[in-house]
Amino acid sequence: MGTTPIEPMMMKMTLTGVTSKAIRKGDPEPPLASGKFRIYNMRFCPWAERAMIYVAAKGIEAEVINLNVTDKPEWFYSKHYQGKAPAIEHDGKIVIESGFIPEYLDDAFPESRILPTDPFEKVQQKLLAERLTMVAHAVPQLFAVMRDRNLKNEKQEKVFEVLQQAENLLVHDFYAGSAPGYPDYLTFPFFEKIWWSASLDDVVDLPVHGFPGSEKFPKLTSWFERILNSDVVQSVTQPIEFGAEFMNAYATHGTLNYDLGL
Amino acid sequence: MGTTPIEPMMMKMTLTGVTSKAIRKGDPEPPLASGKFRIYNMRFCPWAERAMIYVAAKGIEAEVINLNVTDKPEWFYSKHYQGKAPAIEHDGKIVIESGFIPEYLDDAFPESRILPTDPFEKVQQKLLAERLTMVAHAVPQLFAVMRDRNLKNEKQEKVFEVLQQAENLLVHDFYAGSAPGYPDYLTFPFFEKIWWSASLDDVVDLPVHGFPGSEKFPKLTSWFERILNSDVVQSVTQPIEFGAEFMNAYATHGTLNYDLGL
Repeated sequence: MGTTPIEPMMMKMTLTGVTSKAIRKGDPEPPLASGKFRIYNMRFCPWAERAMIYVAAKGIEAEVINLNVTDKPEWFYSKHYQGKAPAIEHDGKIVIESGFIPEYLDDAFPESRILPTDPFEKVQQKLLAERLTMVAHAVPQLFAVMRDRNLKNEKQEKVFEVLQQAENLLVHDFYAGSAPGYPDYLTFPFFEKIWWSASLDDVVDLPVHGFPGSEKFPKLTSWFERILNSDVVQSVTQPIEFGAEFMNAYATHGTLNYDLGL
Repeated sequence: MGTTPIEPMMMKMTLTGVTSKAIRKGDPEPPLASGKFRIYNMRFCPWAERAMIYVAAKGIEAEVINLNVTDKPEWFYSKHYQGKAPAIEHDGKIVIESGFIPEYLDDAFPESRILPTDPFEKVQQKLLAERLTMVAHAVPQLFAVMRDRNLKNEKQEKVFEVLQQAENLLVHDFYAGSAPGYPDYLTFPFFEKIWWSASLDDVVDLPVHGFPGSEKFPKLTSWFERILNSDVVQSVTQPIEFGAEFMNAYATHGTLNYDLGL
């Protein structure tokens, strides 16, 4: 399956505000100049991270607005009827939902297209990304373990099953083919959340270094290392120690510490 | 929001096999000639109906293979890893999933494009269709009433809420604008299943004639009548009496009578 190599675009990656503090209820709407591109984000949200990675991979110059999505700014409801992240905004156009923003960006910015142009190859990549949402659904299993370590054996078995299916679906270096593409970018954030969980004490028996483990998951382990260390992912991701702490506080106390580490 | 009027395409609608008997385990794979287009369908399945309507609306000449999706033919797993309907096949290419087939068809057959070409208008229609999947999720509420009439008041309230939201989202003659389009075609089958339910005794207080009722839902009622009676929908749909009987037998006894009425 052919994909556009991403290297030539990396040079012009310019996301600003990735580590800005979260805007909340009462804060005014920051003005957005004509022609400027904005992404509404939540630093630890894997769904928002999908859009962040796609924007970065396409080399779109964008201003990141981090949101407190519990105490949301009132004006944000005029952008997103549910007040959720991610959302993108440019030239008065707002597009929401992590499953829709990436393809929209390819349509609106075709010069940095990531999805294949061939209709059949394109839909195969979309279907693969959809199938890989099983990884997203595995993450809450580990929240349950964070709350109650007695559930570890039962819950981690389900995570291992999902990882095994993801290993089986990885038939090239990347899900998109010889270079990372649509299914890789839309799926990575959920693998990353499992990786963050692995750094917490006694939550899941997976290695932090060489995640998820080359013995059982050789292709995935090689894939994860390459995509985690790519300039694209490094430009948007949060450090594992903050990520793990955020998830643990959310799972155990319902606390959403949006500005953790800032 | 601009959409291509569908009338010019209706002349060349040629779906064959819409009312063919369901192929099942043990039945051989019917040969598919080069250049021919096939759709794997289940006559009473709203998800499959989405693809059927889209194929009909695009005027694609297609052979319909109805499937027994309980006792599936073994060879069908080579087409769809879960053995589900809908799936389309042409020139050795198989595309699955009702949420992906329509846009693929627009990409592969751009001369009969239904989604707008403008990236922003296109994604708005896709997001609207996604939002309208709430109608799909309302249908099982009525299965519960078919099993136990004591649940009618509680369950139908949820259906009425969904219909009210759908009414509020209908700001033009059709969800796509002045002509039916992507969100209309992907959503209609679920409204139709609620309509079928309304024809059963004491399941939901909605009129069969003038569904879902012009007093509470004036825009939807006008919309439903127009799209139900369109040549596109009439070319693929099943009679309400068979549809209602199929749903009731499924809800109350788990029976899937694929060849009902044939």
